[in-house]
Amino acid sequence: MMDFLTQCRAIIGEPYVLDTPDGMASFLTDQRGRFTGKAQAVLRPGSVEQVATLVRACAEHRVGIVPQGGNTGLVLGSVPDASGAQVVLSLARLNSIRQVDAVNRTMTVDAGCILQHIQEAAAAEGCLFPLSLAAEGSCTIGGNLATNAGGTAVLRYGNTRELCLGLEVVTPQGEIWSGLRGLRKDNTGYDLRDLFIGAEGTLGIITGAVLKLYPQPKASITALAALPSPADAQQLLVLMQDHCGSSLTGFELMSRYCLELVAQQFPQLPRPFTEPHPQYVLLELSSSESEQHAVGLLEHAIGAALERGVINDAVVATSVAQSAGLWQLREHIPLAQAKAGKNIKHDISLPVSRIADFIAATEPLLDAAFPGCQLVCFGHLGDGNLHFNVAPPAGVSNEDFLHNQDEVNRVVYDSVMAFGGSISAEHGIGALKRDELARYKSPVELNMMRAIKAALDPLGIMNPGKIL
Amino acid sequence: MMDFLTQCRAIIGEPYVLDTPDGMASFLTDQRGRFTGKAQAVLRPGSVEQVATLVRACAEHRVGIVPQGGNTGLVLGSVPDASGAQVVLSLARLNSIRQVDAVNRTMTVDAGCILQHIQEAAAAEGCLFPLSLAAEGSCTIGGNLATNAGGTAVLRYGNTRELCLGLEVVTPQGEIWSGLRGLRKDNTGYDLRDLFIGAEGTLGIITGAVLKLYPQPKASITALAALPSPADAQQLLVLMQDHCGSSLTGFELMSRYCLELVAQQFPQLPRPFTEPHPQYVLLELSSSESEQHAVGLLEHAIGAALERGVINDAVVATSVAQSAGLWQLREHIPLAQAKAGKNIKHDISLPVSRIADFIAATEPLLDAAFPGCQLVCFGHLGDGNLHFNVAPPAGVSNEDFLHNQDEVNRVVYDSVMAFGGSISAEHGIGALKRDELARYKSPVELNMMRAIKAALDPLGIMNPGKIL
Repeated sequence: MMDFLTQCRAIIGEPYVLDTPDGMASFLTDQRGRFTGKAQAVLRPGSVEQVATLVRACAEHRVGIVPQGGNTGLVLGSVPDASGAQVVLSLARLNSIRQVDAVNRTMTVDAGCILQHIQEAAAAEGCLFPLSLAAEGSCTIGGNLATNAGGTAVLRYGNTRELCLGLEVVTPQGEIWSGLRGLRKDNTGYDLRDLFIGAEGTLGIITGAVLKLYPQPKASITALAALPSPADAQQLLVLMQDHCGSSLTGFELMSRYCLELVAQQFPQLPRPFTEPHPQYVLLELSSSESEQHAVGLLEHAIGAALERGVINDAVVATSVAQSAGLWQLREHIPLAQAKAGKNIKHDISLPVSRIADFIAATEPLLDAAFPGCQLVCFGHLGDGNLHFNVAPPAGVSNEDFLHNQDEVNRVVYDSVMAFGGSISAEHGIGALKRDELARYKSPVELNMMRAIKAALDPLGIMNPGKIL
Repeated sequence: MMDFLTQCRAIIGEPYVLDTPDGMASFLTDQRGRFTGKAQAVLRPGSVEQVATLVRACAEHRVGIVPQGGNTGLVLGSVPDASGAQVVLSLARLNSIRQVDAVNRTMTVDAGCILQHIQEAAAAEGCLFPLSLAAEGSCTIGGNLATNAGGTAVLRYGNTRELCLGLEVVTPQGEIWSGLRGLRKDNTGYDLRDLFIGAEGTLGIITGAVLKLYPQPKASITALAALPSPADAQQLLVLMQDHCGSSLTGFELMSRYCLELVAQQFPQLPRPFTEPHPQYVLLELSSSESEQHAVGLLEHAIGAALERGVINDAVVATSVAQSAGLWQLREHIPLAQAKAGKNIKHDISLPVSRIADFIAATEPLLDAAFPGCQLVCFGHLGDGNLHFNVAPPAGVSNEDFLHNQDEVNRVVYDSVMAFGGSISAEHGIGALKRDELARYKSPVELNMMRAIKAALDPLGIMNPGKIL
C-alpha cells in the first residue's frame, strides 16, 4: 500500500497537501479561538473528481476526514480533533459559479463559493439570494448547507435548507452523487438532499448545489418599536403578519440591556428613543412595488399596533438610508458583547408563542443560581430563535464566570426542553454540543440517526466525533 | 405464537379488524380503479399506541404493512399487492386536530385528518393552511405528507414538505418517535422529518404532524392571459414575479386544445376570448392588504406584459366572484379529459426555463411515433410542473391507445431526463412507477436509498414493493 500522504500528493499535487505547522495553522483553530486540533495534513483538492479520489484514499487508509469551507462555524464542526490522525479536506478551491438561470431562478455553484460572492452574482442578474449572516464575507455555501445556516432572512425565505433545490455530494465510498436538479417539484424517492443538508459533513461531502433565487424587492424599510414586554412582541408579530403577510422580512427582538450595552460600547450610534423601554423590536418590510409602498404599509401597521396598545412608541425610517442606521443597532449587539468580555452563549429556539413564558421562567432560575448575572437576550423572534447569553454579575470577571458554563447550560437547556424548544437553532451540533445532543434527544431518534450514519458511512470516516 | 389476526383483534378490538371481502373492498382498489389488491385484513387502530403495538405484531409475524389514509393516491402507493399476505393499516380513525396555536401559527394534527377539515380549522382561527388539491375533500394529511403532495399553491407556499415543522412516526420496530416540534429553526442532527416525508410509508408510519399556518390573504384575484407560445409563458412568469413578488400565488399553463376540450364537454362555462390563442395562463394574485390592492397590482403587471408583447390579450377579473369563474376553466380540464375518455398521463417537472424547449422537442417525437396523437398539456408552470397527457389520434379508441402506454412513457420520460426533469413531480412513485425509478435514477442514488431502507426497516415490512 502506498504511503497515505504520498498517495494524496499524487492525486492533487504537492502544493495542495499541507503538512507543516505553519501551512496548517489557520485550518486547525476554530473561529472563536476556543480549540486547536491536530491533523496529518490539510488537503486542498481542485475538482470534484479529486475530492472523490481523495475520499477513496482515506477510506482505504481509514483516515477520518474533516470537510472545511470558510471555517466560520461556531460549534467546532469544521476543525479536527486532538488525535492528529484526521485530515482537513478544504473545499476552498472549488469556488466557481457554474451557472445562473434567471428564468428558472436558480444558480448552480461549487461548495467553496463564498456566500457574499453568490449574493453578488445573483444581484448582477437582478435576483436575490436571500441567505444573509454575519460571516457572509468568508463563509462558504458548502458550510452553510452542511450546517443549514439561518441568519436574518429566515422569517421570509427560510433556512439554507429551503434555499436549495439540488446537491452534488461525494459519498463516503468516494462516489459522486449528481443530484444537481433545479426542480421545484420532484417526488422520486427518498429526500437525500435534506439528509445531507444539516448533517455537518458526517454523511458525505457536499461539492456543489443548485440554489433558489428570488426577485429583488424594490425596497426594504425598517422601523424600531418600543414595547413593554416579550409577550407584546409576540402579539406584534401576529399583527404585523396579518397586515403585511410575506412583506414582513425582519423581526428582531432586543432587550433594554442589549441596547444599553451597544450605547455604552458604541456611543456614536443613533439612540432612537429618549427614554428607555423594556424591549425593542426591529421590523423590516420589503416591497416588490416601491419604497413608497413599503413605507405606507409599515406606517399603517405601526399605527394599528399603537392603537391597540401593543407598542409604546416607534420610529419608522423614511428612507433606505435611515433603515440601515437602525439595523446597525441590532448588528452591534454581538460586537458590544465581545468588547464587554466573553459570556456564556446559547443559540436556542422555541415555539414563538412560548418565548415570553420561557424568558419569564428562565431568568429567575438563572438569577437564583448565579445571583446578579445579566441576561443578554436578543434574536430572530419571528423564527422563535433567541440568542440567550448570560454575562457575569457585577464584580465577577468574565473569565471566572466562564467556569460556570456547564451549570448555566443545564439551567438554560433544561428550561428550553421543558418549553418544547431546541438547544441549537441555527449553529448546529459539531463537537461542542455532542454531549448535549446525547442528553436531550430521545433514544428512538438517536438510534435512527446512528442507523443512517452506519448505513451510509460504515467505516466512520466522515467527520468523526461530530454530531453523534 | 398467537395467531396473527387474533393478536390484532386483541390489540384494537374485533370491529376494527376487517377481513371479509365486503369489509375490505374499498381499501383494496386504487382511486382510478386500475388495480385491486388482496390483503389478510384491514386494520383500523384508534390510537398511536395501537398503531405501534400493531406494527410490533406485524414485525413478529413478518407481515407487510400498507399504510393508508384517504386512498386517493395516483401511483398505487396505498393499496396492497396481489399476494394476499399484506395488511392495510388505515389511519382514518386518527382524525383529531390536537392543537391550534395562532401565535406560533401552527396546528398539530393526527395523520388521519381530512385535508379540508384542516383548512377549515385554520380558517376558523383566521389563518390559512395553503395545501390545496383536487382530492382535498377525502385525502388525509398523513397521505399528503407521505407523498409530499403538491397542488395549486406550491408557487407561493411550497409542497407539503415545506408546510410541516414536525412529525410523529411509528417506526418499523413499533416504537413511537415524538418529533412534534413546532420550531422554525432546529439544527440538532439529521433531518429525519424530511426523510419520512415523501417516503410513501416505506420507512415508518406517520401518525401526527405539526403544520405551518399562514396569515389569510385579504383577497385573491385572477386573470386569464392569452399568449403566442410556452416561451412567452416563461417570460410572463419572470415579469409577473418581478412586479408582484410573493403576491403571485398561481400561474397555470393551458394549451388551446385544453380549453377547446373544456368548451366541448362543458359548453355552459365562460369563454373569455372570442378568438382562440395558442396558449393561456391563469394568473392568481393574493394581497395581504385589500381586493383593490390585488386588482391594481394585477392590472399594472398585465399592462407591462401587454406593452412588452409577452401576451396577446388578457381578461382581469374585477372581483373575487369573477375569479372563481376563471379558475373553473382550469379545474375542468381533468374532468373534460375524463369525459372524453382515458388517455396516457404524465406528471412531470422541468426547470421552468426549459419547458418551452421540452414541449417543442417532445411533441414531434410523439407525433412521429403515434401520428395524429393529441397532446393535452397543462399544469403548474410556475413550479415547472406539467400534466403532459397524450390522447389517441382521431379514429383510434381510447382503450386501444392505452396499449401503447409503455412506448409513450419511454418517449416522454427519455425526453424529460434529457431536459433535466423529473418523471414524478407531485404524485410519487408507489408501485406504478417503481420500474421507471429503477431505470432513470443513478445507481449511486438508488444504493443510498436502499441502504437507508435496510437500516431503518431491516425486516422489510413497511409498504413492501413501493418505491424500491
